[in-house]
Amino acid sequence: MAVPPQSAARVEVLRLPAGASEWDELAVEEPLEIRVNGASVAVTMRTPGHDEELAVGFLLSEGIPAVKAQPPQDLAANVVDAEVAGDFDLGRLQRNFYTSSSCGVCGKGALEAVAVEADPVTSDLSVSAQLVASLPDRLREGQPTFAATGGLHATGLFDESGNLVTVREDVGRHNAMDKVIGHAFEEGLLPLARHILCVSGRLSFELVQKAAVAGCPILVAVGAPSSLAVDLARDRGITLCGFVRDGRVNVYSEPQRIT
Amino acid sequence: MAVPPQSAARVEVLRLPAGASEWDELAVEEPLEIRVNGASVAVTMRTPGHDEELAVGFLLSEGIPAVKAQPPQDLAANVVDAEVAGDFDLGRLQRNFYTSSSCGVCGKGALEAVAVEADPVTSDLSVSAQLVASLPDRLREGQPTFAATGGLHATGLFDESGNLVTVREDVGRHNAMDKVIGHAFEEGLLPLARHILCVSGRLSFELVQKAAVAGCPILVAVGAPSSLAVDLARDRGITLCGFVRDGRVNVYSEPQRIT
Repeated sequence: MAVPPQSAARVEVLRLPAGASEWDELAVEEPLEIRVNGASVAVTMRTPGHDEELAVGFLLSEGIPAVKAQPPQDLAANVVDAEVAGDFDLGRLQRNFYTSSSCGVCGKGALEAVAVEADPVTSDLSVSAQLVASLPDRLREGQPTFAATGGLHATGLFDESGNLVTVREDVGRHNAMDKVIGHAFEEGLLPLARHILCVSGRLSFELVQKAAVAGCPILVAVGAPSSLAVDLARDRGITLCGFVRDGRVNVYSEPQRIT
Repeated sequence: MAVPPQSAARVEVLRLPAGASEWDELAVEEPLEIRVNGASVAVTMRTPGHDEELAVGFLLSEGIPAVKAQPPQDLAANVVDAEVAGDFDLGRLQRNFYTSSSCGVCGKGALEAVAVEADPVTSDLSVSAQLVASLPDRLREGQPTFAATGGLHATGLFDESGNLVTVREDVGRHNAMDKVIGHAFEEGLLPLARHILCVSGRLSFELVQKAAVAGCPILVAVGAPSSLAVDLARDRGITLCGFVRDGRVNVYSEPQRIT
């Protein structure tokens, strides 16, 4: 697979102890301003490309459905504008993203304080442990820019037979997930009741939240989950598999989906 | 070294294909609300512990010097309050953290759009490539919670002889760096002109920015830097070493400091 031209940059590097001055390919990181109906709502540091998917997935994760976004006319502008139909409370959206003085983490349980509302995932999908164990290798095969730079996280969307539907890479793990979910939305695949999401690294709370909003019943990670990631997966009925490597699978929640 | 009790949580896990149900230790992830003089300015997902260092380091990175913070009376409250002496423009600080409709990424260079002002680092510190190559192993030895959970990023502060001054672990790589810089501030070590910072993973733009504000001349990473991380390191006169593993060191900027 070819590396998308905007995803990697050539940089001069001195390699020690050899002492050779050479060129290295690094993952590109640049800011993206996300606007909704023309108003700025967030800036994320991301790898350019699929910016419209990133905006759509990001907004879906915050509970804003039925949006569409135009790809930037000029990638270097680093701005993407999403359209939200109907009445739209910009203030409420911004309060979700930005802490306000009434954010009130204090005195709440951690989950209650930060979780976005989403229905429990009730899919009866089940797959074999062998299929789950095979996903990281299939994901890696779909990561052209990681192979070149060593610097990108990936999220892959798989069907229930383990076929890779799409993969997105980004310097930010949350961005890679947002791009995949944005793509799935644009393709009419939501909710992802018969799909599996697989991430290349560790699993934070935020990634489980995005999977929950997308309605995905099985979330797989090569790395370790956090405590709160497991808590949220159990709360939302998602099967969370971590440390998936060398044929082994750790199942932290809803193990009935893994046969 | 003992694992701090609030850094890891025991979670039941089903291990496949063995089929054994066991207990696993996972890194704790919980929200922390950071307040300045009583007003909320940010929420970060972090691993509990050293929260006052996190708040101090986070604010320093945003250009707010001379702060002190009290550790939370109750860790479960997940709130830390920092004091800033003298006049303090909360609105300006919040505009730094939160995108506003005038954030203006559009039309600026990526660096110009997101970089916080900091003086160039002019330290004449120099160290051997062998010393740099030894830092990741020394960092790993100082990571008790990673060893238990596999789920934490670490930042280590080293002196110019390669001795570990302090190490902090966190589910968020930026938090680990903030805690180390907050600790260094509280110990009167800033600017870090005779020190080296080493991170366990990849190097984003944000981490270079924090090192620049702390005045640290050499920044070392086990993983890959992003393109913007290299751009900022060159702009601020920081020696950036990446892919430091197996005795090899890639130097991306200011190589005169590595002998």
